[in-house]
Amino acid sequence: MQLGMIGLGRMGANMAQRLQRGGHAVTGFDPTPEARARVAAEGIATVESLEALVASLDAPRALWMMVPAGAVVDATIDALQPLLSAGDALVDGGNSFYKDSQRRAEALREAGIACLDVGTSGGVWGLAEGYSLMVGGDAQAAARLSPLFQALAPAPDRGWGHVGPSGAGHYAKMIHNGIEYGMMQAYAEGFAILERKRELTPDIAQLAEIWRHGSVVRSWLLDLAAEALVQNPGLGGIAPYVPDSGEGRWTVAEAIELDVAAPVITQSLIERLRSRDDDAFADKLLSALRNAFGGHGVKRD
Amino acid sequence: MQLGMIGLGRMGANMAQRLQRGGHAVTGFDPTPEARARVAAEGIATVESLEALVASLDAPRALWMMVPAGAVVDATIDALQPLLSAGDALVDGGNSFYKDSQRRAEALREAGIACLDVGTSGGVWGLAEGYSLMVGGDAQAAARLSPLFQALAPAPDRGWGHVGPSGAGHYAKMIHNGIEYGMMQAYAEGFAILERKRELTPDIAQLAEIWRHGSVVRSWLLDLAAEALVQNPGLGGIAPYVPDSGEGRWTVAEAIELDVAAPVITQSLIERLRSRDDDAFADKLLSALRNAFGGHGVKRD
Amino acid sequence: MQLGMIGLGRMGANMAQRLQRGGHAVTGFDPTPEARARVAAEGIATVESLEALVASLDAPRALWMMVPAGAVVDATIDALQPLLSAGDALVDGGNSFYKDSQRRAEALREAGIACLDVGTSGGVWGLAEGYSLMVGGDAQAAARLSPLFQALAPAPDRGWGHVGPSGAGHYAKMIHNGIEYGMMQAYAEGFAILERKRELTPDIAQLAEIWRHGSVVRSWLLDLAAEALVQNPGLGGIAPYVPDSGEGRWTVAEAIELDVAAPVITQSLIERLRSRDDDAFADKLLSALRNAFGGHGVKRD
Amino acid sequence: MQLGMIGLGRMGANMAQRLQRGGHAVTGFDPTPEARARVAAEGIATVESLEALVASLDAPRALWMMVPAGAVVDATIDALQPLLSAGDALVDGGNSFYKDSQRRAEALREAGIACLDVGTSGGVWGLAEGYSLMVGGDAQAAARLSPLFQALAPAPDRGWGHVGPSGAGHYAKMIHNGIEYGMMQAYAEGFAILERKRELTPDIAQLAEIWRHGSVVRSWLLDLAAEALVQNPGLGGIAPYVPDSGEGRWTVAEAIELDVAAPVITQSLIERLRSRDDDAFADKLLSALRNAFGGHGVKRD
Repeated sequence: MQLGMIGLGRMGANMAQRLQRGGHAVTGFDPTPEARARVAAEGIATVESLEALVASLDAPRALWMMVPAGAVVDATIDALQPLLSAGDALVDGGNSFYKDSQRRAEALREAGIACLDVGTSGGVWGLAEGYSLMVGGDAQAAARLSPLFQALAPAPDRGWGHVGPSGAGHYAKMIHNGIEYGMMQAYAEGFAILERKRELTPDIAQLAEIWRHGSVVRSWLLDLAAEALVQNPGLGGIAPYVPDSGEGRWTVAEAIELDVAAPVITQSLIERLRSRDDDAFADKLLSALRNAFGGHGVKRD
Repeated sequence: MQLGMIGLGRMGANMAQRLQRGGHAVTGFDPTPEARARVAAEGIATVESLEALVASLDAPRALWMMVPAGAVVDATIDALQPLLSAGDALVDGGNSFYKDSQRRAEALREAGIACLDVGTSGGVWGLAEGYSLMVGGDAQAAARLSPLFQALAPAPDRGWGHVGPSGAGHYAKMIHNGIEYGMMQAYAEGFAILERKRELTPDIAQLAEIWRHGSVVRSWLLDLAAEALVQNPGLGGIAPYVPDSGEGRWTVAEAIELDVAAPVITQSLIERLRSRDDDAFADKLLSALRNAFGGHGVKRD
Repeated sequence: MQLGMIGLGRMGANMAQRLQRGGHAVTGFDPTPEARARVAAEGIATVESLEALVASLDAPRALWMMVPAGAVVDATIDALQPLLSAGDALVDGGNSFYKDSQRRAEALREAGIACLDVGTSGGVWGLAEGYSLMVGGDAQAAARLSPLFQALAPAPDRGWGHVGPSGAGHYAKMIHNGIEYGMMQAYAEGFAILERKRELTPDIAQLAEIWRHGSVVRSWLLDLAAEALVQNPGLGGIAPYVPDSGEGRWTVAEAIELDVAAPVITQSLIERLRSRDDDAFADKLLSALRNAFGGHGVKRD
Repeated sequence: MQLGMIGLGRMGANMAQRLQRGGHAVTGFDPTPEARARVAAEGIATVESLEALVASLDAPRALWMMVPAGAVVDATIDALQPLLSAGDALVDGGNSFYKDSQRRAEALREAGIACLDVGTSGGVWGLAEGYSLMVGGDAQAAARLSPLFQALAPAPDRGWGHVGPSGAGHYAKMIHNGIEYGMMQAYAEGFAILERKRELTPDIAQLAEIWRHGSVVRSWLLDLAAEALVQNPGLGGIAPYVPDSGEGRWTVAEAIELDVAAPVITQSLIERLRSRDDDAFADKLLSALRNAFGGHGVKRD
């Protein structure tokens, strides 16, 4: 079927390609000429404006946004809305906050436009392996667009589903990312212990590789860890500095709002904050206090 | 090759079967007649004493213990040692503490007996899917027994390896289990949040199933979680009570001994402790303190 | 000086008394006749409406709200604003969220009314011992009302201060309460360990009492803990159920917003959430998973 | 009464002085001439050997060790034991592990020597303010030495007590220090948030000072924090590097051994470990993993 893809960054470009390979007629738009050119080089039609994009599609249309969460999504919707017709469907495939997605879907619903929030996991590997898709929003629209989900998913009958009303897709993706934080931290801690004890277990890349087969901790993240450790066993040149991108902190806030104890996901986020604060005031105060009550020496900067 | 398997509980019996299917000549021993009978019913030879077991094997022998960690391992070694000859090899495939394994290997080395500590992961699924094996100890003995490891592993060339000197195998398994604690807790927290928000994401088993394909959090533990949630979506009848079996607390102690921060693995263990303390004194004191300074009401037992 | 106290609950009534004892002319208002009667019995003038309250005070007026944070504060301000004149000062002494206080002060500033946000600590003991007061907002208004702060504080020259612009007082109180959560949890955990080991340290009330004098952990909270443990050593009849009232979760959210690692304050909040969830889904899933991969028994509900 | 003080470091010297001021006849020993000279300058008798120390005291003797925990305590006891007589009492006032104290008391009991383990809190302030003393061991010996405890404590009738059999004094001190870790971390986190938000609350030393009077979080540690922040508001020159000295990790291990959840004390220790690891392997692996699955940039060392 026809699809207009808005946003041709790494994720949008890869998804456009996977859809095209799946037999769909994709037209791409991105304000950046370079982004359009990269996608065009893969044989995908591109246009230079949202107006041209909408005009290129037969009604009822399907459009898919892969743009940065937040203000850009709102601005894109504001620009699109006058161009769309009742019956069109608009997908937000980015990592929007679920309450924003609920608000947007509500607003577009009045204009007869179905807004689907599609949590999308798979990262840079999705092009080759397929994406995991959590679809929230109007069930009828989700059914109409199902050929697209089938092409993006690892297989037509798995790795995607309509999971609930508006917001449910981004909610599920938010929690997915929270779990991801916890899993990553668990592996990171385990390998850090092994690395510190390297006189006993000298080859932690080998251990990661062994665990990939038959162990209880085998996973796709472990596959990636094994590869990273093979390529750079001591992780030389990589700073111990870990950004976070929103979904983790939303998960923490959500858990607290719901009165659900989520100590490990929360602690995973906190550890990332700590990794970026190499002059932690808290630790300086602890050092000052130890000196004050016990006369313990203070390490100087 | 010939192998004597000591301990025919769930793990030992399954491993004996997988070795037998792999073409090895396994003789099993267990003090319990019922355990022997179950294995014999699978066509595996059994004997009624350690003496008979040792006598049934040609030197240099290979013996494999799958017995409870701790005193039973020591008692088994004490009983075996007079029966063994220089050149024999003895595997401890259980979850022994790595320092115990180092001590035992040192003691047996003087008698010319190689003691291998083989961390074994795979649980009840190992029979069908193969075990992940981390082999610690004498490299020559590990090489001699490699046909056994090849048969037990998911494939001859992967899922096992000689990872270091004595203790390294159980050390690696200990850390593996620590990681497992963290991963399990991360999933558990994520699904708990989704379950609490079920008016938005009503079908958490469906979400687990979607994530199994293409998502960043796909893993074998997620496969199991998906199945558990399909079979019993609300987990009815299951108490929120989680035992722990040693490796988790050893990992926590080891991290502290090495000065490695492992907040998530540690917190996973603590949550299990908390799950088993439904009359927590700490929480009662918090409630009493709130009443004392703020006049806040106290919930009565 | 003259003061109108709005809200004669436990905190408001006590503060009115302490101000009256300090020589100030307090008039109290509360919509509940019983609350007014209790205060009147202490010799404090009361009125039956906000209109009467404002009319009873000479301009420039000073009014102090001790009402529940949130909608009640907004409703009270809405009702008061038409009655007030430029130059009047309005104190919010409750636990309002600091961004709300900033918003309110901004709105009232346009009408020439100074809104002070005064974080107030001391609980039910403040009447006798004085309150700790963190004053945020217009410095000139804070100076004009300083006789009130001097009377409420433990001593005229200490225990209170103008700490910053609008919002600063409630911000400081929020963090104060976050610290309080962490301290309480630290004591609670320590006494819980001692209580579990009571064959060695049988009298934990005695320990609390010893620590009150000369130890590094002496504090007012410890004074209260010692008294609570003397009165009820086993804390019998008290459920392990700990509410939380907002400032703790705001502190956690603020730390994350500022990228400051606050693991202990955060974990203190999470433990309270956990205390109220005696059928934790996360723990049920952990139990189900252990059964799925290892065949471990599941405790039944 | 007569007392032999062994170990004239900071703690031992201060305690000898306070005892001397309290009217007791103290003789001090330390292998270091400088340490003896400092104490002698305060008018306290010193001797140059354990033999001379024991010879200077009338039986039944009282001796007090303030020496580093661990091997030095054992060596001191080994050297002392042949010199002592049945009926003598030996105090270990350091931070020994409670199981060591139990073992030592058991061994000395056979020789008729009472060994008291006295947890001692107060740090460098104890000389002026008195020490908090938790006495474990033989009740009769504790009663005989009570004049010493009365002189060391803040007042004769408070701040000390016989808290249980051998080991109980050091056990209580261990938990005391665990609580101390948690309290310190709670303050440190709170002040770190305030410091990060200094555009709103510019003077955190002022806040600490306000809270000292009337607030729920007032404590002796806060007194010290307030002073440290007044003297060095930005804590300039102090590295964010926090040692730990044993009791914290023992508390964590003990909590786990007893199956008591102690998340905050534990997390306080972990944060100290983290503070000393500015090239954390775990965080490097997290960064590598984010790059591997999401193409996110990696910060370079």
